[in-house]
Amino acid sequence: MPDNSQQKVRILKIEDASSFEADDQLAVEEPLEIRLKYGTLVSRQQKSISVTMRTPGHDDDLARGFLLSEGIINHFNEITNIHLHRASSEHIITVELHPDIVPDMQKLQRNFYTSSSCGVCGKTSIEAVHQACKLLPVKDTIKIAAPTFLTLTDKLRQAQAIFKHTGGLHACALFDLDGNLLLVREDVGRHNAFDKLIGCAMLQLPLPLTNYIVLLSGRASFELIQKAMMAGVKVIAAVGAPSSLAVALADDSDITLIGFLKNNRFNIYTGTQRIINLKHENTH
Amino acid sequence: MPDNSQQKVRILKIEDASSFEADDQLAVEEPLEIRLKYGTLVSRQQKSISVTMRTPGHDDDLARGFLLSEGIINHFNEITNIHLHRASSEHIITVELHPDIVPDMQKLQRNFYTSSSCGVCGKTSIEAVHQACKLLPVKDTIKIAAPTFLTLTDKLRQAQAIFKHTGGLHACALFDLDGNLLLVREDVGRHNAFDKLIGCAMLQLPLPLTNYIVLLSGRASFELIQKAMMAGVKVIAAVGAPSSLAVALADDSDITLIGFLKNNRFNIYTGTQRIINLKHENTH
Repeated sequence: MPDNSQQKVRILKIEDASSFEADDQLAVEEPLEIRLKYGTLVSRQQKSISVTMRTPGHDDDLARGFLLSEGIINHFNEITNIHLHRASSEHIITVELHPDIVPDMQKLQRNFYTSSSCGVCGKTSIEAVHQACKLLPVKDTIKIAAPTFLTLTDKLRQAQAIFKHTGGLHACALFDLDGNLLLVREDVGRHNAFDKLIGCAMLQLPLPLTNYIVLLSGRASFELIQKAMMAGVKVIAAVGAPSSLAVALADDSDITLIGFLKNNRFNIYTGTQRIINLKHENTH
Repeated sequence: MPDNSQQKVRILKIEDASSFEADDQLAVEEPLEIRLKYGTLVSRQQKSISVTMRTPGHDDDLARGFLLSEGIINHFNEITNIHLHRASSEHIITVELHPDIVPDMQKLQRNFYTSSSCGVCGKTSIEAVHQACKLLPVKDTIKIAAPTFLTLTDKLRQAQAIFKHTGGLHACALFDLDGNLLLVREDVGRHNAFDKLIGCAMLQLPLPLTNYIVLLSGRASFELIQKAMMAGVKVIAAVGAPSSLAVALADDSDITLIGFLKNNRFNIYTGTQRIINLKHENTH
């Protein structure tokens, strides 16, 4: 990560009854505006589509992954140019789409499942995600040995550069099915970290990302499972707890969802058929 | 919290090399639409202003706190009625404003600092928050003994009902300056937990909430400091790390910001003058 992702400050540290001055590193949080340039050559348009509070660095990955996970693009080659404008204190990234691409601007709301047409219940939220997902479902025969998962969090921690200094970042990581770490992205926002990961992965790997494991450093919410689904991810492991709607969407989308992956333990919430080498004990 | 905030599921637990089936409790995550009814009696209007993924329970607090922290209302008596409509799977809460109240609908974007007029840099974000805040700044003489902070997280943990079962919730708590716990609110979303806390506190306590401490179970982001500021909170302690922009806003707003409050330690990032009983050691 570049240097502008951390900021040094002088603080007062309290330990038990004593206090002393010390240096501290903060994770930088700054707004980034994402603009989309699209339309035919004769009627080119530009529109601001999102402002997100993010940690600087890998902004092109963030913009690319955001467009994929929101259903605006399906492949990186639909983008002709990405340009970051960082003058004084303004950060604007402009993504130019190929003139042949006609984006569905109705989807250009950060939480597209919240549009009035789809209602606001959990069931219709899930239906809206399925409708938005353009990737064809892939029949997979993924099998992952259970002990593989127990190795993932240590690998992530070793790779997390900024977290060590600031303690203030979410991380997402991509592993192959043998548990080899391929990519890590960090951000103050968990959605941004995931978008950065997808935005980088889609440049290097064919979509959908069926034969990979995604690890989330925190909890698994509905929106994160939604992003995974948009990228075709079939196996998600979270260090923290999943929410009810995250489990419902994973179940409905044939995604394997693992939670509480820490201290040599984990819980399988959905998609147990992909996990092998389980020694089964009596039900507790 | 009511029963619909948790959901029981059957999962497969993996511990070391063994697996067994077990019951598990999930924190419920469901969309809630907030609608605002406003205008004079002859030209009454209704508008959907937000859809948020929240944990059911205290929805009226959430709606009330959201309106305060977004700068739409200044006092609970500007609201004449709050009605939760929960038919089949749709959850809609409608807040009716007093006919004399003319809300500034420009502010009715969840992240009002992201409007194009204020730019997207950190500095202008902070200015936008100051402009949106209608509460008059209160000169305070708050002094809190440092050891008081060391007692807060244990008190929160004891009071957290759902977290014990699901491990999946953020919490916000309100304490008086002696460290007595007054209120706790939980949610899958950290912003929602804070809005619920403010929405409840404003019914029982006079605004601004100057003479209280707010404790956040996770990290302190810009948006959370912004909410604190809108409610007039002067002392915020977070179990996790603050971001750079959170520290900048706290500093600019004369807020005491404490981070990494755990294991008998904490860091003071801003507003050190309010913390007393510090035994000062040599600078490390």
